[in-house]
Amino acid sequence: MTPAAPPTRRPGGRTARIRAQVLDAVRAELGEHGYDGLTMDAVAARAGVHRATVYRRWGDVGGLLADVLDAAGDDDWQPPDTASLKGDLAALNHEIQAALTAQPPIVAALIAASFRSEKADHAQRRLWEDRYARCEIIVSRAVRRGELPPRTDARRLLIAATAPLYHQLVLLRTPPDPHLPDHAARTAALAASAGAFADDQGG
Amino acid sequence: MTPAAPPTRRPGGRTARIRAQVLDAVRAELGEHGYDGLTMDAVAARAGVHRATVYRRWGDVGGLLADVLDAAGDDDWQPPDTASLKGDLAALNHEIQAALTAQPPIVAALIAASFRSEKADHAQRRLWEDRYARCEIIVSRAVRRGELPPRTDARRLLIAATAPLYHQLVLLRTPPDPHLPDHAARTAALAASAGAFADDQGG
Repeated sequence: MTPAAPPTRRPGGRTARIRAQVLDAVRAELGEHGYDGLTMDAVAARAGVHRATVYRRWGDVGGLLADVLDAAGDDDWQPPDTASLKGDLAALNHEIQAALTAQPPIVAALIAASFRSEKADHAQRRLWEDRYARCEIIVSRAVRRGELPPRTDARRLLIAATAPLYHQLVLLRTPPDPHLPDHAARTAALAASAGAFADDQGG
Repeated sequence: MTPAAPPTRRPGGRTARIRAQVLDAVRAELGEHGYDGLTMDAVAARAGVHRATVYRRWGDVGGLLADVLDAAGDDDWQPPDTASLKGDLAALNHEIQAALTAQPPIVAALIAASFRSEKADHAQRRLWEDRYARCEIIVSRAVRRGELPPRTDARRLLIAATAPLYHQLVLLRTPPDPHLPDHAARTAALAASAGAFADDQGG
């Protein structure tokens, strides 16, 4: 679920290399200074790329942030496979908690930026949608193992399992609770086994 | 759970009256223009109060937002009492969903502003802390009725019940799901009855 992946390999030519340099610079500037300190000029300088290139290709800070988020989704990330629903959700939650509390706080800064920039907002929502869609395999595996009823609402279950982490860390901004990833996973798995997310329970 | 209460009665003298006028103006400006359009001068003009008074008393936009949030917590709000855990959580969630989707979007704008202004951040956290503390009576009533084990972790249960609404509406920004308030309440109540929030289950 980590929106900001570490710098990836750099295939392709000059265009791909410039993009990688610029996006690395955006992440670094964002981690150091947050949204308020992020400027096109600082990114260009840090990346060692002409300012004109950065303006032409990304337009503004929102364009840079959106491209960082889009690049984060352009990977082969798959949710953990631990052979149990509770284990998969717990491992997923540990990844989320690690990303949200990482230093420098790039993921947290990107989420905060999504309240400021419409382009970042759209890109952040695309990324979350993509991540949650990939995570649905956690639920279909659990159904296949007979852990869950066949018509379980995967998205609702995944939201229930992961929402407490986002709520505590992003909105309530309480110190990270090391037990919460496991606890929220266990709670959601327990409710799911009891049929709380079976489709015919809507409403 | 509504952070921005409607304008309240105005006891007290001139100072209290000016505060009420100014905070009403902040809410109105915020609802119409969001954080980006909120200025000290517009608030002073709308409130019909001298600019100098607004600057002297609130300092900056962050000070205005913090005072709106503090004023919202200065009420006699109590969580709904429906005589069942599931009913109380559902009624609470309906209040939260209504506040987060209200037009004009004052509550949503205040949450967004808490990512921009340190003063608003602190005030928003104080308000949430106060609201969740008041909601703990939902859990103690359920324990008294024998619906829950005596040593249930009230805060964790309340977070689990309410987090999906905040996650969907504030972070994922998906359209409001009319079933979610009831569903998230029922899921949390089900897990709670199964002992998911019993204190000895930590970790």
